[in-house]
Amino acid sequence: MADLAATIRSMGQAAREAARALATADAGAKNRALTSAAIEIRRRVKAILGANADDVALAKKNGATAAFLDRVTLDEKRIDGIARGLEAVAAQPDPIGTISEEWTRPNGLAIQRVRVPLGVVGIIYEARPNVTADAGGLALKSGNAAILRAGSESLQSSLVLVEALHVGLREANLPEAAIQIVPVRDREAVGHMLGLAEFIDVIVPRGGKSLIERVMKEARMPVIAHLEGLCATYVHQAADPQMACRVVLNAKMRRPGVCGATETLLIDRAAAVTHLPPILHDLFKAGCEIRGDVTVQKLDPRVKAAMDADWSTEYLDAILAVKVVDGLDQAIEHINRYGSHHTDAIVTGDTKAAEAFLARVDSAIVLHNASTQFADGGEFGFGAEIGISTGRLPPRGPVGAEQLTSYNYRVRGTGQVRP
Amino acid sequence: MADLAATIRSMGQAAREAARALATADAGAKNRALTSAAIEIRRRVKAILGANADDVALAKKNGATAAFLDRVTLDEKRIDGIARGLEAVAAQPDPIGTISEEWTRPNGLAIQRVRVPLGVVGIIYEARPNVTADAGGLALKSGNAAILRAGSESLQSSLVLVEALHVGLREANLPEAAIQIVPVRDREAVGHMLGLAEFIDVIVPRGGKSLIERVMKEARMPVIAHLEGLCATYVHQAADPQMACRVVLNAKMRRPGVCGATETLLIDRAAAVTHLPPILHDLFKAGCEIRGDVTVQKLDPRVKAAMDADWSTEYLDAILAVKVVDGLDQAIEHINRYGSHHTDAIVTGDTKAAEAFLARVDSAIVLHNASTQFADGGEFGFGAEIGISTGRLPPRGPVGAEQLTSYNYRVRGTGQVRP
Repeated sequence: MADLAATIRSMGQAAREAARALATADAGAKNRALTSAAIEIRRRVKAILGANADDVALAKKNGATAAFLDRVTLDEKRIDGIARGLEAVAAQPDPIGTISEEWTRPNGLAIQRVRVPLGVVGIIYEARPNVTADAGGLALKSGNAAILRAGSESLQSSLVLVEALHVGLREANLPEAAIQIVPVRDREAVGHMLGLAEFIDVIVPRGGKSLIERVMKEARMPVIAHLEGLCATYVHQAADPQMACRVVLNAKMRRPGVCGATETLLIDRAAAVTHLPPILHDLFKAGCEIRGDVTVQKLDPRVKAAMDADWSTEYLDAILAVKVVDGLDQAIEHINRYGSHHTDAIVTGDTKAAEAFLARVDSAIVLHNASTQFADGGEFGFGAEIGISTGRLPPRGPVGAEQLTSYNYRVRGTGQVRP
Repeated sequence: MADLAATIRSMGQAAREAARALATADAGAKNRALTSAAIEIRRRVKAILGANADDVALAKKNGATAAFLDRVTLDEKRIDGIARGLEAVAAQPDPIGTISEEWTRPNGLAIQRVRVPLGVVGIIYEARPNVTADAGGLALKSGNAAILRAGSESLQSSLVLVEALHVGLREANLPEAAIQIVPVRDREAVGHMLGLAEFIDVIVPRGGKSLIERVMKEARMPVIAHLEGLCATYVHQAADPQMACRVVLNAKMRRPGVCGATETLLIDRAAAVTHLPPILHDLFKAGCEIRGDVTVQKLDPRVKAAMDADWSTEYLDAILAVKVVDGLDQAIEHINRYGSHHTDAIVTGDTKAAEAFLARVDSAIVLHNASTQFADGGEFGFGAEIGISTGRLPPRGPVGAEQLTSYNYRVRGTGQVRP
């Protein structure tokens, strides 16, 4: 194991050096690396598919579920999507060097707050090989060096993708160590990364709960974590019934397995009889299971009884917990208590109620009259995202290139000394 | 110990509830609480001095050093300074609710990024009782609830200060649980706080290296840490000799024990003979010990030999390590390698060299022609500070009220669903 520790350590050192070069690299060079890598990925479709077949075979051998296999598997369309993702990141404005504030002190010192990269970002992920290019590309765009740790069942595809990224870096005259990948499946590698605070400035885990909990426990550096998305949609009594139907159906059923999927529906008592039956009708038709409180159960015999645990369960499946509330205050109270502070929405025609909801619900994303499934960096216009941070400190919410930055203060004087 | 754990836990619960009220409290109420608390502190000078006498007696009994006793001891002037600090925080603009960005997506969704409080801030500190009011006041200004853990030798003074803060909160109709202090000296309390991620969103340790290392190791929530200030001043060959003398003397000797004090002086070989002798003369005159490389030793017989360890030592004392470098690149290289990424300065008349230094030195604060001792939230215009964050993620550098905030996204639609 000593060798692996040394390997990770020397990757860290190389990343630190590369990060210094990237911090002052101009936007053109970074974008050239991204677009060249996209071209190279399209050129290597066959090699990527071949490597991916090995990954899929391993996943099957390891007894992966159908959902897991779907996440591992690449096809030509998905590979083109990966290349387009890099082009989208290249097309974004460069986040580095922006002056976010400047002011002059009475003593004449001129102070600027300037956006700078974080440094070295470690990304630990599981099944999806596209994270290799998404995360590597976003890190590069924001001037960070990346150390990638792919899941065992996506390593072969990821290695080929990193080769393509290296071609892009070389063509742009940027150091290849800007994007490195742990070349072995050895599970100890994660532990070595989490202890390497000297060279890795922040860790981004992407995967299941157990991975994220391990990372949060062991990491000796800050973690940008994507925990649960226990999202609620609240149908207020002043909601337009048709809009409520459409928004709730989309929020739950568009893709029930994404973190922005609604898991809990709250509805005002005053609207339960009028608004809820058509909503339930559409959900049942779409194949959704409903678990409701007593009032909801009375409205439709197909509704199952909700248990206490249902209010705090992220199903990631075609199941919805439904509760009748006595108005705005109770809805907000429920969301702040049971939700995961990820994404929550209100449907209402009452602007005052909507504004109170937006101000008082303590979540990374709060929406009025829109589906919770918009919780996504791409939908926010960030080009791509590395995840949705559920932490309370920045970065909070969708993490795109701009969110992978920090800042420093540049102070210009004329010989001032402090009294 | 079960009782103490329960006490800390119920403080956490109360803080969480108070934080919800504070998050939407208006600026006027928060400022009224701060200014009323300042009045109350002035009213209670005698009670504070009495409690402080007990603290000082305990510190003496525990064998405290003179420096430690100085930090614990309050007098009327210092108490007035604490009250003025609260008034200065009240006079700052309110950081909460500010829209830092807004844009509209092609699908019509209007997105705002809005500044919100962090939630509950735990502050663990050692000797200085003024931190009680500074930290409590800053947390309140930024809409956060605070749980304070004072050092054993400042607990009595801190308890009286918290009483005064509570008077302010009551007068402003804000919950007293907005500012709580652990009422016992028991050392286990720190461990209980560090494990309480459910109710404490971020921990700010203020104190010696061992405290901060313990917090960084044990905390289950993010830490805003103030590690070393191994700051350098670089005298470039194009520096004005008199300015260099003045800035270096201030950077080292104004207060050698603060984190922004310069610990390493770098000077261009081309300027060593011309610029260094008067700098050394002033430093020796001020009582500073100089540890230099071979070239520096040759310039003055009083210079001691620098060891390798000197380049990475934060003396916090009247000692300066001095090294001759072969120009800008070597100076930047030295600082990025040996420094602590806190605060570094260049003295030069050459704007191009200065800009290269500001862009390439990887520190929270970089200065041109000014003393590193300006590394201070007050000097930056933040009213007060809770410390200087040496982390790479935001908040970086001086942490004032604005830096104790986060943001969320508020999205307004007209019934949009995601395709």
